[in-house]
Amino acid sequence: MTDLLPPGSTVGILGGGQLGRMMALAAARLGLKCHIYDPDPMAPAGQVCDQITTAPYDDKSALEAFAQSVDVVTYEFENIPTDALDLIEAIRPIRPNRRALATSQDRLTEKTFLNELGLKTAPFAVIDSAGDLESALATTGTPAILKTRRFGYDGKGQARVMTTADGDAAYASLKGAPAIAEGFVEFSCEISVIGARSLDGSVVCFDPGMNAHSEGILRRTTVPAPLPNALRTDAVLLAGRILNALDYVGVIGVELFVTPTGLVVNEIAPRVHNSGHWTQNGCAICQFEQHIRAVAGWPLGDGQRHSDVEMINLIGDDIGDLPRHQNDPSSAIHLYGKAETRPGRKMGHVNRIVAPKG
Amino acid sequence: MTDLLPPGSTVGILGGGQLGRMMALAAARLGLKCHIYDPDPMAPAGQVCDQITTAPYDDKSALEAFAQSVDVVTYEFENIPTDALDLIEAIRPIRPNRRALATSQDRLTEKTFLNELGLKTAPFAVIDSAGDLESALATTGTPAILKTRRFGYDGKGQARVMTTADGDAAYASLKGAPAIAEGFVEFSCEISVIGARSLDGSVVCFDPGMNAHSEGILRRTTVPAPLPNALRTDAVLLAGRILNALDYVGVIGVELFVTPTGLVVNEIAPRVHNSGHWTQNGCAICQFEQHIRAVAGWPLGDGQRHSDVEMINLIGDDIGDLPRHQNDPSSAIHLYGKAETRPGRKMGHVNRIVAPKG
Repeated sequence: MTDLLPPGSTVGILGGGQLGRMMALAAARLGLKCHIYDPDPMAPAGQVCDQITTAPYDDKSALEAFAQSVDVVTYEFENIPTDALDLIEAIRPIRPNRRALATSQDRLTEKTFLNELGLKTAPFAVIDSAGDLESALATTGTPAILKTRRFGYDGKGQARVMTTADGDAAYASLKGAPAIAEGFVEFSCEISVIGARSLDGSVVCFDPGMNAHSEGILRRTTVPAPLPNALRTDAVLLAGRILNALDYVGVIGVELFVTPTGLVVNEIAPRVHNSGHWTQNGCAICQFEQHIRAVAGWPLGDGQRHSDVEMINLIGDDIGDLPRHQNDPSSAIHLYGKAETRPGRKMGHVNRIVAPKG
Repeated sequence: MTDLLPPGSTVGILGGGQLGRMMALAAARLGLKCHIYDPDPMAPAGQVCDQITTAPYDDKSALEAFAQSVDVVTYEFENIPTDALDLIEAIRPIRPNRRALATSQDRLTEKTFLNELGLKTAPFAVIDSAGDLESALATTGTPAILKTRRFGYDGKGQARVMTTADGDAAYASLKGAPAIAEGFVEFSCEISVIGARSLDGSVVCFDPGMNAHSEGILRRTTVPAPLPNALRTDAVLLAGRILNALDYVGVIGVELFVTPTGLVVNEIAPRVHNSGHWTQNGCAICQFEQHIRAVAGWPLGDGQRHSDVEMINLIGDDIGDLPRHQNDPSSAIHLYGKAETRPGRKMGHVNRIVAPKG
């Protein structure tokens, strides 16, 4: 097997949600086939891929057959069971690599990695048991947030601590899971950099976007972010350092706080990222295509932006706004093929072209 | 059934080649499912659609089941047997409509329609039998081209007549098929306009591109075409007149010759068109998405161009140039998932971003 996968090769994707679906669409453009692995028979990516395996992540024979049928394996989410990864990795390369996954799966490992790289994070302290709570909050100060070390996303597995008196109740809500306390960071805005690194070590980043959240879920990303050029460059360089330190192959999402004393890393996601969806209509090569190029061993496309874009997530009942977006001729609509609308469920997004590149 | 198909609806596509494949990818972005109908079990669109029927176009029960399973039917090629269309149309709407198909399926009907609309074509004359040859060539002059009225594409079904003495041999090569003689047009270049019309009659056109052919097959399209603004506007208005006259719904390709006395229509294609592939990386809404929006009854996106693009077809062994295109970071690569390379076969195309919009 050569490093550069030829057209007609198959990319295996763990997870068939909207990210897997958009990766599969990008792979198809490049003449590559996709085999999706997802426990859910209604997985959105199943509508657009060449092959799908519907099986749980502990089904060893399904995992083995999946790995045998593909040329390389990637994933759309970071909480993949270790045993599944071990089994797959013995058969086919996994990109991004296991270290990138291990680092981002655990908030303690991630923050330690970032600090050791000389990058700033929020102050944090480990809480292995209730006895660690007091000293942890002394380290971070209050208010603080308790977060489970693993399996958190979209604000889940988190509890606020306004004063030390709240600590016990907040910790109890995490049900004994290994956790960290995280201090608050005073920031003017959150931005993110979507970066990519190829098998030969080249790095390409997209322009940072500014993110707006509500209820722990991303709502909007605006590009360009209203930042001085020096900060924009800092953000991109910082993403490049993370990619190189992890010997990363693929696309990464790096969330950053803009503070009076510079950039603070909030978290990293070893995959395509919701805050990079704007690239589909802001760049010739979007994050999904860039990711597939990287994991297939292809050279990267450039990250040049041709338009100013506002990405608007359609969450739950936001899908009711569809007629308004359909009637805006400068809006590109992306829907995920989910039959059922539920509160908090990501149903689609819209990339509104605001202007040619400003 | 309302006119505007909601997300989750199914678009039926007759033909699963590269055009069907790229329509299916666009439909997926919009949250619509696709059901492809193609006699070839290896049809490229089969790798990316929700459902595929592999059956010939005279299989009535397969056609009926196909039509029943979808909400609207469109197509990627114009030479669909009339009986198949009759059967489908009794069950589901076909867009673009039968008149658009009938007009473009027959060169005589097409040229007559265009002339009646006040648009210029090459001089032409009908040849129903060998006895018509002499008077036909007297009408068109020589050199001329004899063309079968139906089923011609990429230069097939054509024969040149340099002098009247060549006429008999040229006509014999068409094997008695109903034909026309077409006179030569002195032109400086060929351009094409990709236009779209929605169910409510709105028209949106993309910027005209300049086409370069070789051996009867499109090789390159360059956008913008080097035209004075007045001609560019003429081209777009002319496409709009054709769309309105046919009460058209969907995307059309209109090929035009640029001559010293203005624009002459070469031919129209009632479908997405190879010379519109540049829109995938030159516009926020590409021709495939625009077509699906139209046939699904959605409002159209705008046709604004954000970049200057050169579209390069990869035909047959051109696929050997893939490494060069992969190494050009400003080139977006589109491959069609065809396993076998054959001379003259369209394997993919590349959209090279030349510059932001000039």
